[in-house]
Amino acid sequence: MAGSRCVVLISGGLDSATTLAIARSQHEHCHALSIDYGQRHRVELEAAARVAHRLGAIEHRTVRIDLGQFGGSALTDPAIAVPETPTTGIPITYVPARNTVFLALALGWAEVLRTGDIYVGINAVDYSGYPDCRPAFITAFEQLAATATQAGVEGTLHFRVHAPLLTRTKADIIRTGLTLGVDYAETISCYQADTTGRACGRCDSCRLRRQGFLDAGVPDPTRYRS
Amino acid sequence: MAGSRCVVLISGGLDSATTLAIARSQHEHCHALSIDYGQRHRVELEAAARVAHRLGAIEHRTVRIDLGQFGGSALTDPAIAVPETPTTGIPITYVPARNTVFLALALGWAEVLRTGDIYVGINAVDYSGYPDCRPAFITAFEQLAATATQAGVEGTLHFRVHAPLLTRTKADIIRTGLTLGVDYAETISCYQADTTGRACGRCDSCRLRRQGFLDAGVPDPTRYRS
Repeated sequence: MAGSRCVVLISGGLDSATTLAIARSQHEHCHALSIDYGQRHRVELEAAARVAHRLGAIEHRTVRIDLGQFGGSALTDPAIAVPETPTTGIPITYVPARNTVFLALALGWAEVLRTGDIYVGINAVDYSGYPDCRPAFITAFEQLAATATQAGVEGTLHFRVHAPLLTRTKADIIRTGLTLGVDYAETISCYQADTTGRACGRCDSCRLRRQGFLDAGVPDPTRYRS
Repeated sequence: MAGSRCVVLISGGLDSATTLAIARSQHEHCHALSIDYGQRHRVELEAAARVAHRLGAIEHRTVRIDLGQFGGSALTDPAIAVPETPTTGIPITYVPARNTVFLALALGWAEVLRTGDIYVGINAVDYSGYPDCRPAFITAFEQLAATATQAGVEGTLHFRVHAPLLTRTKADIIRTGLTLGVDYAETISCYQADTTGRACGRCDSCRLRRQGFLDAGVPDPTRYRS
């Protein structure tokens, strides 16, 4: 056990719920952090609160920050449509510097909590199009954390970004989560879920999730609206 | 001229106003960014708006983000007093991971604006106690930016964090700003200015600023409340 406490970034989606379950298996006190960044899928934040409670996080905080005012992403700009067919290259759902902002916030909280362990559910297999979902990004962030913080400079904390899903397939993630007690019916992955949490079934995130349940050979508990 | 546009982080204080003036001398379009992070010195944000306008920023945006909910700093936690006598080591006014969060936000906006040039008024001479005001931090952030962004990974933008004040004394900063037209009467540096913008004259920031005007041999336009 790397230490008794950690910070876990959770969005309310499948990946971060599984990450919290993994973190919870390794740390006694998991402090869950969600970011309300003006995303379209706001029901995710309600899902995040349910997931944090159910999986035994000791607390759950939500930091509000309006990334939408910068524009540039289908997830924060209502003028840009969420794609419903597969695309190549970095998708328009990429939010500039999003994971850098999220990890910076997690880092600040971790330093206050006196822990070096930060968990994030990023995945390089399914989201290979996002630059800030790659191993090189994690390594660069850990190097930054060591120089950016009082605890890092003084050597009292060694910051590690744990990304336990980084190289796993969606099916593997689902199987792992099920063994750790994740109820995926409580999670929302859709980029454009409706206000009751029903998924569109067509966006990238829905397609990957649906295929994951198929590949894992387990029933898909997702509520689709069509 | 490194390019026609840039992003400049401004707080409303002396250093960032000077940084904006320097950026303005090198770029046609300066996009000014302030962060409302729950700081005690909120009048700084009003000063930031005045400074941005007066020094010719093409626009000024303020992102609100509640770092105060994490606690751990005299600048965001009302339960922790701002020191009024010199201290050794990293001061209690240090806000965990603050400059990492600020630069991450500037990075996101810069990517949307299609510029790699980010200016920040951090200084390693006066604030040697802050870990995220050192050259090593800037270098680590530039390395992160190259891997964290679509434009960095694709090689269409080369992100540079310009910290033109990094190794300058306060007196040198003031002299430089005066030649570039900065009106320091409009800036607020005090950690606990009152609601009309009058400075306490006693906190670290006030002491450094006052000494800077003395050393520069120019009149100090700061309004002190005592």
